Amino acid sequence: MRARIPVAILGATGNVGQKFVLQLHNHPWFEILAVCASDNSAGKSYREAVTWRQPETLPAEVAELTVGACRLPIESCPIVFSALGSDIAGEIEKSFAQAAHWVFSNARNHRMDPDVPLLLTEVNPDHLAMLPFQRTNRQWPGAIVTNANCSTIALCLALGPIHRRFGLEKVHVVTLQAVSGAGYPGVPSLDILGNVIPNIPGEEAKLELETCKILGQLRADGRVRPAETVVSAQTTRVPVIDGHMACVSVSLAASATELNLLECWQQETPLPRELPTAPRLPVLLTHEQDRPQPRLDSWRGKGMASVVGRLRPCPVLDFKFVVLGHNTIRGAAGTSVLNAELALFQGLIER
Amino acid sequence: MRARIPVAILGATGNVGQKFVLQLHNHPWFEILAVCASDNSAGKSYREAVTWRQPETLPAEVAELTVGACRLPIESCPIVFSALGSDIAGEIEKSFAQAAHWVFSNARNHRMDPDVPLLLTEVNPDHLAMLPFQRTNRQWPGAIVTNANCSTIALCLALGPIHRRFGLEKVHVVTLQAVSGAGYPGVPSLDILGNVIPNIPGEEAKLELETCKILGQLRADGRVRPAETVVSAQTTRVPVIDGHMACVSVSLAASATELNLLECWQQETPLPRELPTAPRLPVLLTHEQDRPQPRLDSWRGKGMASVVGRLRPCPVLDFKFVVLGHNTIRGAAGTSVLNAELALFQGLIER
Amino acid sequence: MRARIPVAILGATGNVGQKFVLQLHNHPWFEILAVCASDNSAGKSYREAVTWRQPETLPAEVAELTVGACRLPIESCPIVFSALGSDIAGEIEKSFAQAAHWVFSNARNHRMDPDVPLLLTEVNPDHLAMLPFQRTNRQWPGAIVTNANCSTIALCLALGPIHRRFGLEKVHVVTLQAVSGAGYPGVPSLDILGNVIPNIPGEEAKLELETCKILGQLRADGRVRPAETVVSAQTTRVPVIDGHMACVSVSLAASATELNLLECWQQETPLPRELPTAPRLPVLLTHEQDRPQPRLDSWRGKGMASVVGRLRPCPVLDFKFVVLGHNTIRGAAGTSVLNAELALFQGLIER
Amino acid sequence: MRARIPVAILGATGNVGQKFVLQLHNHPWFEILAVCASDNSAGKSYREAVTWRQPETLPAEVAELTVGACRLPIESCPIVFSALGSDIAGEIEKSFAQAAHWVFSNARNHRMDPDVPLLLTEVNPDHLAMLPFQRTNRQWPGAIVTNANCSTIALCLALGPIHRRFGLEKVHVVTLQAVSGAGYPGVPSLDILGNVIPNIPGEEAKLELETCKILGQLRADGRVRPAETVVSAQTTRVPVIDGHMACVSVSLAASATELNLLECWQQETPLPRELPTAPRLPVLLTHEQDRPQPRLDSWRGKGMASVVGRLRPCPVLDFKFVVLGHNTIRGAAGTSVLNAELALFQGLIER
Repeated sequence: MRARIPVAILGATGNVGQKFVLQLHNHPWFEILAVCASDNSAGKSYREAVTWRQPETLPAEVAELTVGACRLPIESCPIVFSALGSDIAGEIEKSFAQAAHWVFSNARNHRMDPDVPLLLTEVNPDHLAMLPFQRTNRQWPGAIVTNANCSTIALCLALGPIHRRFGLEKVHVVTLQAVSGAGYPGVPSLDILGNVIPNIPGEEAKLELETCKILGQLRADGRVRPAETVVSAQTTRVPVIDGHMACVSVSLAASATELNLLECWQQETPLPRELPTAPRLPVLLTHEQDRPQPRLDSWRGKGMASVVGRLRPCPVLDFKFVVLGHNTIRGAAGTSVLNAELALFQGLIER
Repeated sequence: MRARIPVAILGATGNVGQKFVLQLHNHPWFEILAVCASDNSAGKSYREAVTWRQPETLPAEVAELTVGACRLPIESCPIVFSALGSDIAGEIEKSFAQAAHWVFSNARNHRMDPDVPLLLTEVNPDHLAMLPFQRTNRQWPGAIVTNANCSTIALCLALGPIHRRFGLEKVHVVTLQAVSGAGYPGVPSLDILGNVIPNIPGEEAKLELETCKILGQLRADGRVRPAETVVSAQTTRVPVIDGHMACVSVSLAASATELNLLECWQQETPLPRELPTAPRLPVLLTHEQDRPQPRLDSWRGKGMASVVGRLRPCPVLDFKFVVLGHNTIRGAAGTSVLNAELALFQGLIER
Repeated sequence: MRARIPVAILGATGNVGQKFVLQLHNHPWFEILAVCASDNSAGKSYREAVTWRQPETLPAEVAELTVGACRLPIESCPIVFSALGSDIAGEIEKSFAQAAHWVFSNARNHRMDPDVPLLLTEVNPDHLAMLPFQRTNRQWPGAIVTNANCSTIALCLALGPIHRRFGLEKVHVVTLQAVSGAGYPGVPSLDILGNVIPNIPGEEAKLELETCKILGQLRADGRVRPAETVVSAQTTRVPVIDGHMACVSVSLAASATELNLLECWQQETPLPRELPTAPRLPVLLTHEQDRPQPRLDSWRGKGMASVVGRLRPCPVLDFKFVVLGHNTIRGAAGTSVLNAELALFQGLIER
Repeated sequence: MRARIPVAILGATGNVGQKFVLQLHNHPWFEILAVCASDNSAGKSYREAVTWRQPETLPAEVAELTVGACRLPIESCPIVFSALGSDIAGEIEKSFAQAAHWVFSNARNHRMDPDVPLLLTEVNPDHLAMLPFQRTNRQWPGAIVTNANCSTIALCLALGPIHRRFGLEKVHVVTLQAVSGAGYPGVPSLDILGNVIPNIPGEEAKLELETCKILGQLRADGRVRPAETVVSAQTTRVPVIDGHMACVSVSLAASATELNLLECWQQETPLPRELPTAPRLPVLLTHEQDRPQPRLDSWRGKGMASVVGRLRPCPVLDFKFVVLGHNTIRGAAGTSVLNAELALFQGLIER
């Protein structure tokens, strides 16, 4: 067995950073060598610097790492995972790509850059082919690969196979999103206990734009032609810890039956079986009328699958259904890690 | 000042029954004379029989009433309010109408009967004109007037003025509904704490059907021609005590601007000012981007108005917005009482 | 009727500040003339500056006031209510007292100062007699009157009459406190949804110390000899919006029966009837075995009373019972306002 | 390796029954052969009969078992685990013991029977020696072994080693208990969302009595002399899914330091290492000031340990601390299974 590739986590002490630690600890291909955070934390052990809020135990080896600052140089880590906030992620990620790192980022800053892939591993793996263009354009020895917003990921895992086969004309989506999506401290309890907040600033635009980029077609010039799907999003925050739910209605370009859609969702992953964290089934179906539910179903497929239920005709569009995804696993750290696995498997990253 | 009309409450000990008590206590036109419940409770004082779960104090006069059974005869009460469960409401309500009572019911059993008005006071007050037909058809000295399902009421208060002016072609609605809508004991806490349940059995059909009857047109023969609006509903239960929220998208028959819609919603009530519990503005607008919220806004207009916010264009239909209503006040007891006020005001009920 | 006394609120935009607005709006003796907040807010209208999070509507007159800074001079307001954070309250409150204002403060900074009354209106109204000593000591034309920590207030309203009659030797108290006690943004939802936090920093010491000062005896020299009651406190945070609950066990110096304790709690307020916001019964009793409950009982007595239930023998001490109080009404703004009413009624404040 | 012993679960479809399924599935010593439930469920597959509400997947082998009734005969299962409700557990458990089954019961019916062990495996393993007396007394070829109430188990795991070494004179305990302790449907969401219920009927007496039996001494005649510890309990229900917390104050017969108590809790399990589900450390310590927390710490030690934190002096008794335990794992099914492991290991049960 070959040595594992050392990786760094930027923004390692936050909520998504902690999920990166859990996804990468004991990973067969990657090894956490550096955990980086704000200058306040730098110099402390990770155990001291972090307020660990996961039900899983903080892995002992990571706990003893000394936290570094989120700046160059970070030696010996060809791969860098970014859980940085969007206030600082833009420049820092660029500087790492310039310094020959492969940056897999959960931040929104570069998602819509025309030469940056917005990669959802099972849905648009071919978009990795944008990278040579990106590196040439920017004259970077490294590269940036982004993943979408958490709610978009859960949605697009379910939309991807349908769009590929039948073409999505319209998508109407109303989300009920968990508080962990807002990071920490995030949503004040006074605002959300026994309550719903009918807006998540910026989230609706992300769903509407990122979905079209993910479902879009890679052209010969390395640019993505966004899907022409019309997307309308309404986002809400609900008092749930983990698990974003979406109530989705779609209309299709080609005619399809409910059975056709179910077949789309029962397909095994198009990804190579060797990828360690790829779920065998990217979409899991529930058959009970009151599922999926965030508290019971978010962890299915180890938090890496979208769970779909209640498929039925929609009087206004063609079909409606419910999608659920784990927002900080598949919706954040998990997709970044899986994206890195694919890039490594394709030989893009020199070991 | 004339004497108040004595009224009875059927199902008076349940959650909606308790709201009837609060809406009718100190009412200027009505006086609670009889509180009726299951045979188990009959004979006890209301204080003993009820498990009072309202933050408001149980009114002392009602507390001392002796609970009766939900069956005839109930003397001296021309008006009967029904908070009965649908398992028994159908036959009991009929028997009271046959015995010359005016029954204002929150139960679903007779809502879709072709000669029973599904009355939403501000939206279709003219539907009260179905009653002479009903009484003739059924040879009843009394009558039955129903109100819609809680989520339908909140929705239709907002849709009514738009439909009247511009015509609604399509309505897509996703609800986030409070647990009080399921009565007591209702939703187990193990199911809903920190969770969402993406289905409320039967609720979606009610929203799709009842909306069209409410928005429908009364014909000369006393029947309602349902509106041809296509309605698609997706209902969810969220961990909120009171207040049903709906994320609504609509398309209109006539072209309209956002300003037009706002004008529709700013109209004062079309009801006579004399009705004691009619809100002056049936629709209240919020202007903050994160409102309306169930915990902060359900009680606006004393729980009798729908609160609307976040009006904006919908890429899939024409417009989208958020509606909130108090599900056990306006969505249940409050509409029944207001319906009775209108019937009394119109002289339909002999004092 | 005499003119109302103009008052200022320091820290008027926070959660407790908003409660001051509600307690003081339409107050028969006081009139809000100035609302003060951080320099960021100064110059804006209160409506713009505040994020109003109360179910009650923001009073229109207050909404139009221009927010001032929390510094001198504030003209024409003999009385100043302070909802300031403890990081800044100490010096600001002093400066106002020096400038001839009467400061009624909810902040903890001066509570344990030996010449500052820690006033719980019904329990130790005689402690107001400390003020002449304070003014002489400090050579202040004004004065500072503090109220206790929210959980201490709810507890001591119930303990006061027992201590007076039977003497409290030991008090063991475990609290279950609402999130509104932590202000805004306060407790992150990720920490408290579906969870309990078994510590509130600093709160246990406050309960143990402030209780003894409140129950203490005013000596001839204007100092308080603290009660010798041994108090042990354990504080927890629970996912409740408003209402602090305490599970209390006590042992008494003199022998007493359950009936004796109930008699203590059924006494009417010792305060003059003229005080506008004094509850007639400072302690309200519940008789159901599952009460008091924060969501159902916090607002009893308009949020100004402590609600006590489940009195029974304690195998370890003498008696145990449950106390509930509204933490931001009686536990904060309400006590400050009532303290000011008493000072005014006693003629201490020149109108 | 020897064959696994076939076992039956009575009450297998309820919440605790589902936990039994999870604890026993893939158990190295036991194999689920029979799942029994109400007559309504009998004849269905377990998958059909159960409403599975666990985040873990329903094990496929169990799903396919046909549900039986909770009555004799159940062939080939020397061991029977009972998750029956107390309304029916008493007689059914007796009948199984008479029919030569070993019954490990979570029901309260036989806990205080003088010849029935109330076994908390690490604390009073010697109480298993009551069984020969029980079998002689009752002339049963089988036997009944009970485990305590969920909150008592979490408490006594922490108290056991202290009592053994220093003697407990007084224990004052206030619990904050999760809704899963009330079974399903259990606590209505309308009662507990954003609320606390300051009573759990019957629970305080259980804590006060069962603690003394568990900590009691087995006499030569096979009876237990209860510990003379004075226990005072106050129980509350909080909106938490899993994990009972207790705020505990104790006074000791012998003098002890905080360090002494910590040493007691750091001891490894006194149980034989071979027992498959015995946690190596029955008490786990937290060092952060705001822990243990139900949502973060209940699953530590696979839900089989008590988590203890915040040890400090108590002004009223000697020490105070916080205990947390997983109420449906260690507090129910887990202790029953561990009790059975011990009995099997000691050779009491013939394979």
